[in-house]
Amino acid sequence: MTADPVTAAAPDGLRFDAQGLVCAVAQQFDTREVLMVAWMDAEALRRTLTTGRATYWSRSRRSYWVKGETSGHVQRVVEVRHDCDGDALLVLVDQTGPACHTGTRSCFDDEPGASRRLSTSGS
Amino acid sequence: MTADPVTAAAPDGLRFDAQGLVCAVAQQFDTREVLMVAWMDAEALRRTLTTGRATYWSRSRRSYWVKGETSGHVQRVVEVRHDCDGDALLVLVDQTGPACHTGTRSCFDDEPGASRRLSTSGS
Repeated sequence: MTADPVTAAAPDGLRFDAQGLVCAVAQQFDTREVLMVAWMDAEALRRTLTTGRATYWSRSRRSYWVKGETSGHVQRVVEVRHDCDGDALLVLVDQTGPACHTGTRSCFDDEPGASRRLSTSGS
Repeated sequence: MTADPVTAAAPDGLRFDAQGLVCAVAQQFDTREVLMVAWMDAEALRRTLTTGRATYWSRSRRSYWVKGETSGHVQRVVEVRHDCDGDALLVLVDQTGPACHTGTRSCFDDEPGASRRLSTSGS
């Protein structure tokens, strides 16, 4: 489903970028594992807060997506926090199954045969 | 110090945005607390990997900044990972003192008298 972005009032203290977006970091609420990074506009945030399901804005598809809507790997929202300068969100969730479309629990986990670690020795 | 961005080769698998940036999530390596979100270009990432000190690109000041260079609240880099689609970084660090310029440990922590939690009841 492709949709035009919807205008929603931003909560106080938030600063969206020129594209109307803030970076959203999804973290498993109990283990504190960072699961993924995605984007929200004011409407995605409003839906996230009101439905309790993490909802993001896809920059490539230009549409809203409810995490897990297709895969079943939903994120139940426990808490949403913003940072000191209001341009990033921390979304504490309870993740069902893998967060990553590749099947790994976190989008930062290694895949079999493909490390996602960058070398810290040399450039 | 204001500097022009420096051209550095991006590691394989990374996709920088139109401004040449990726979102970088700094996480305390042992407690898994999410400390802050900032931005890196290829050169900031190169410096981070080669010096072992988290170095970011300030979008507002248009300059590189070594985290803690002024405050002493440095971030020793333990590991840098990228996500599945290469447009976000997870920087595992050992944070000295508070990460936030307001004095809180994390940029997502409440300040005295100012909650950074967004309501999940109603819009």
